This record gives sequence, C-alpha cells and structure tokens, in this order.
Amino acid sequence: MYFDIPLYMQSGSLLPHYELAYETYGELNAEKSNAVLICHALNASHHVSGNYEGQEGSEGWWSNMIGPDKPVDTNHLFVICINNLGSCFGSTGPMHVNPQTNESYGSDFPVVTVEDWVQSQERLINRLNIHTLLAVMGGSLGGMQVLSWTLQYPDRVKNAIVIASAPNLNAENIAFNEVARRAIVTDPDFHDGNFYKYGVIPARGLKIARMIGHITYLSDDVMNTKFGRTLRRDVQDNKEIKDQKYLYTTQNIEFEIESYLRYQGEKFSEYFDANTYLLITRALDYFDPAKKYNGNLSLAFKDTTAKFLIISFTTDWRFSSHRSQELVKALLDNKRQVTYMNINAPNGHDAFLLDDKRYMSAVKNYFKQIY
Amino acid sequence: MYFDIPLYMQSGSLLPHYELAYETYGELNAEKSNAVLICHALNASHHVSGNYEGQEGSEGWWSNMIGPDKPVDTNHLFVICINNLGSCFGSTGPMHVNPQTNESYGSDFPVVTVEDWVQSQERLINRLNIHTLLAVMGGSLGGMQVLSWTLQYPDRVKNAIVIASAPNLNAENIAFNEVARRAIVTDPDFHDGNFYKYGVIPARGLKIARMIGHITYLSDDVMNTKFGRTLRRDVQDNKEIKDQKYLYTTQNIEFEIESYLRYQGEKFSEYFDANTYLLITRALDYFDPAKKYNGNLSLAFKDTTAKFLIISFTTDWRFSSHRSQELVKALLDNKRQVTYMNINAPNGHDAFLLDDKRYMSAVKNYFKQIY
Repeated sequence: MYFDIPLYMQSGSLLPHYELAYETYGELNAEKSNAVLICHALNASHHVSGNYEGQEGSEGWWSNMIGPDKPVDTNHLFVICINNLGSCFGSTGPMHVNPQTNESYGSDFPVVTVEDWVQSQERLINRLNIHTLLAVMGGSLGGMQVLSWTLQYPDRVKNAIVIASAPNLNAENIAFNEVARRAIVTDPDFHDGNFYKYGVIPARGLKIARMIGHITYLSDDVMNTKFGRTLRRDVQDNKEIKDQKYLYTTQNIEFEIESYLRYQGEKFSEYFDANTYLLITRALDYFDPAKKYNGNLSLAFKDTTAKFLIISFTTDWRFSSHRSQELVKALLDNKRQVTYMNINAPNGHDAFLLDDKRYMSAVKNYFKQIY
Repeated sequence: MYFDIPLYMQSGSLLPHYELAYETYGELNAEKSNAVLICHALNASHHVSGNYEGQEGSEGWWSNMIGPDKPVDTNHLFVICINNLGSCFGSTGPMHVNPQTNESYGSDFPVVTVEDWVQSQERLINRLNIHTLLAVMGGSLGGMQVLSWTLQYPDRVKNAIVIASAPNLNAENIAFNEVARRAIVTDPDFHDGNFYKYGVIPARGLKIARMIGHITYLSDDVMNTKFGRTLRRDVQDNKEIKDQKYLYTTQNIEFEIESYLRYQGEKFSEYFDANTYLLITRALDYFDPAKKYNGNLSLAFKDTTAKFLIISFTTDWRFSSHRSQELVKALLDNKRQVTYMNINAPNGHDAFLLDDKRYMSAVKNYFKQIY
C-alpha cells in the first residue's frame, strides 16, 4: 500500500512517501470488530501464515499460531500483518531508491523507531477503514510494537498480546546488538552502507551477526540437548562419525553446533539486508517507553486502556521472564486487566515461535473470550 | 627456557624444539616442597604478579592474588607461571619462525591441547629440579590445565586449585568460540593465517572476537549496574550528557556499553595474536577428560590423588557453578578430599580475577593449611 503523505519520524527525519507491504487473512466482519494486527520481529515479514500458492517452503513465520482453526483463528478473525518500514521484504527500506538522490538509500535511510513503525501501521489500519483493533499481538520486538500501540493509540487497541518481550533492552541486549552491528559495518564489503552499487553484500558480517543472534535465541539447555559436544557428521554420507575423533583444526567444522551456526549464518546472509539489520537492532536499542518518565514504567503505562495478555518463557535469557514481570507490575500499578503466564519451556527465546501445548491453548482461550 | 627435545602433541604433530617463557616469584625452599604452578587462561601470560622495574602499568594479571603477603604468599611459596605454547607472549607460537619453512608458522602452528600444555609445563618443572608441586592453580582455562595435571601426572600434584572452570565446554561455550573464530578467519586481513608477511593484522576480526568474549565474562547484573542504558559521554568534555537524547545513528556510539566494548576490542587487537586466539579457543573446545570414558566424569578422575579446592561464582554464566559442582561430584564419587565454595559475587566469570574478601580468604586459608 502506497502512502504519498510524508511520515515525520522520531529522529526528525521524514520519509516523503513510502510503500508498506502487508497481508491479510480471514474476513473483516460487518462491524469491523474482529481485526487483529500482528507485529513482526527482527527478521520476519508480513507473510505470517500459510503458503503462497504453488510455492513450496513459503510457509508464513507464525503459521502454527495463525490460520484457520489455529489459536488466532482466521475463520473468525481478520488478521493483518505489515512489513516494517526499513525492512527488506517489500516495504520501503534501504535497498530502495531515495527520490532525492536517485540512488539506493543505503545507510541514508532514516533511523526508524518502534514508535515510527506503529505510526505507519496506524495509517494503514486507517486506510482499511478499521478504527478499533480487537487485538495487537507480537513476540520479541513485535511485543514492543504492541506495547507502543497501547501508548500511542490507546483508544484503538482492545487487547494487547505481548509475548517474550521486554519494556526495553538491558545492557547485555544492547551489547549483543552492537557486536553484530560492528561485524557488519567493519566488513569491507559494507562500503559505508552503499554496497548495492558495488554488486556485493557484507556477507561475512551478516553471518557473524546471525550466529550471535542464534546463540541468544536458544537456551543453554536446549543447545546441550540438541548439539551438546557431538562432533560433526561425516561429510560423505551425513552420518554421525562413529569414532568421534577430533580433527585437530581451528578452521574446519569439528562440532555439530559449529555446523548449525555456520548454516544459519549462510542462509541468513543470502536473504537479509545488512542496512535493515542495523536499523532494526537500533530500533530495539532505542525502545524505552519509561525513558521520559525517568525510568518509571508504571507512569509510562498510566494512559493505557487495553487489556493485556503477557507471556514469557522460563528459559528465555534474551528477554527473561523477569522483564515481562516488570511489565505486569507496571500494568497492575495502573489497575489494568492483565493475564500473565510464565511458561516452563526449554527452548529459550525461540519458544515464542514454537509449538507448546500450554502456550497455544493460552492464546486460543484468550481469543475465545474476546471474540 | 629452550627445549631441543621434540614435543609429541595429541594431534600427532610434533614441535622439534621450542621456547617456554616463564617467571618465578619467591624462593624455592631446600626441601623443594613449596612450589606452586599457576596456569593462565586465554589472554594472559606468564607475568602473573608485580611490576617490571621502571615499567608503569606492567602489573601482573593476578597481582591481587599472588605476591608477598597475598593469598598465594610468595614470602613462603615459590610461584612459577609459564606462558603456554602457541601463545604470543614469549613462548613459541604462530608468530615465530617455522624451522622447516623459515617463515612464520602462521596457521601451520600445530594445534595445541590442554594436555600438550601440561606436558610442556612438566618438562619445565623437571628442569627446575622440582618433583612435587605443592599446588597447581588456575582459573577458567587455567583451571582445566590444573585438572589435566591431576590426570596426567597424579603423583606430582599435592593440591589442585580450580577456579571458575568446567570439566569441558558445553555447546553454548563452543558456539561463542566458533563465532569469534569465524570473525577472525573471515577478516580479509587474516590471509589464511599468514598475515604477518603482509604487514597487516586481522584487527576487525580480533575486535569482534574480544567484544563477544567480554559479554560472556560479565554477568547481566553487573552490566546493568555498570552501564545500564546510560548514553555515551560527551566527546568534548567526557561528561555525562545531561539531556540523554538519542543521536539516531546506527554506527556511532550511543550507549556507554558500546563505548566500553569498542574500547576493549581496540585494545585487545593491538596486542593479541589472531592465530593464538584460534589455537587457544580450540584447546578450550577440545578439553574433555571424560571423553574416553563415554562422558563418565567420575571414571575420568579415578586415578587422581591430589586434594582439591574448587571455587565457583554464582553469577558466572560462562562456566556456571553447576559445572564446578559436576567436578565436585566426580571427585567425591572417588572419595577425593574436596573443598568447594560457591561465592555469591556479582561479577560473572570475571570474578575470578577480582578482589572479593571471601574468595581471597578462602585461598589464603587453604594455603595456610598446606604449607
């Protein structure tokens, strides 16, 4: 959807016009009371559910959660998901042409914030002639957008579903983002963000960034269970190596976990834009609704009116349960209606994307109560 | 100390001859019963205590622990510390000339293991005409060397002091090492490890490696206390910026934690050798005394005779207390004499290098009992 009205951004920059890629699932009812907005996290897109016709492997990133008869049941609900501005899956971003220079934006793309995204999402919701969203829902960075919706447009959100998220990043979170950014920026193929015109991508940096990311998405326990100290598989027949002898190398793959991380890095570097990675990690760093209240989160949420479902996972160390509990406390301080679950799941931060019976039931039951 | 007898290494390689840099502190007594070997970790050296004459800032890396009237009291003890083979502080390593090619070893330096280090250390101890070490002591990777001493030369070690260590690396530990190695190896200035002859160093990769390392050395809590979400200081007058406004950049320093990590990375890349980093992280990955006993740690320690002091720190997530407790259990299964302390300190893995009254007293009292 094309917008030719400028977007004034928190940074002071403006985007004169922009495109937002989005998808919808299910039907908007006559009362327009069944719309659910899904906000996506770092590397996801607006393609949240189902497969594209005739395209194998094109499954939406939250297909286990959203679709017909799924916890967010598109037989009853009208689901909207928008690719965030600055991302690389269709919405205007660093790869697109800057009308002022007729070259790719590259690192000149304005720094976007969670608040900017929410502002742009609200415009799209308006265009769809929807006033009130039955729910806004998201995990991780998506959850931060949900929180921001309840602050920027309190009267537009009836239910806020915030999963595996946090009221801001802590120092360790910022630290991991910074290392990932440095890996990208110092890759000689980054060319100050203008690599498009050189016909290269800073693949080395993107791989490192993704490897770091993956470590923080998984719990220590699940890594030990999945990989442990198992040595790489035999290259020839992809079988486990029986004698489990070391190769005594520093650069070859010795352990399964190395193989997994390299594969994840490789895959990611082939589809994700480096400038987008910088923008999105910075949006994460900046998000901090309590900042203007001197860190008082309860004050920050004083004007919210939505009902909240907040879910965290016990082994998530990227955004620990403790961070969700800070949110719950701030909301309860304001006497908001909050349902909170801390789910004992082994999969770390990744748990929010995985099947877990209690998690899926919790979301399903919550929606059954509200529609 | 120069050795012209070849060292046969676990990998099957051999070093025909080699130099070991070492320092000693205090005096060996007439009975030769007061010798303590200190084993160093990743980036440390044989310079464990005191300052070099006339050289400001040359303080040994464990001066708070070792020296006259310190917990390891060199008024009574004869302390030896050896720079590990493959390191970059004087002992033979990748920067030195390979006699077979007359060029620097670079990545041809044989892969070293903890067991190889201990073997080379034993040779040096022999040259000093010491049979029995009153104690072998080390933290982190140093602790692994201590464990290996009790297995390779059980009759030579009376007391084994193992601090903030683990019986092997878990998948997450290996994962962090692998990301650091990939950052180094994929830096175009690495030149397959032969960067010396190009007059460059893979500084980009080393910086990333060190930044990742630093995150894992600190606890989440101490990072929040030390840095939190505080914004960078004013570049002009190094004061905290009063209005704490974001700059809205992706490449400049916005948060204090970013500034800290970049500084640490910068400093490290100026003095540490990239090939050494690869070798030492791989030695960490490989160490696994229970491997040949199908993972049975109790069996692995069946032939030890030393007494053990094992110390862990509650907020260490690199080598968690839990890992030290596995060791304690394995030793108790063999009815070894073990003193174990889990110290409630906020500083994460770094705690083993820092002052903490209970920690320092524990080591001091242990030594008072044994000499």
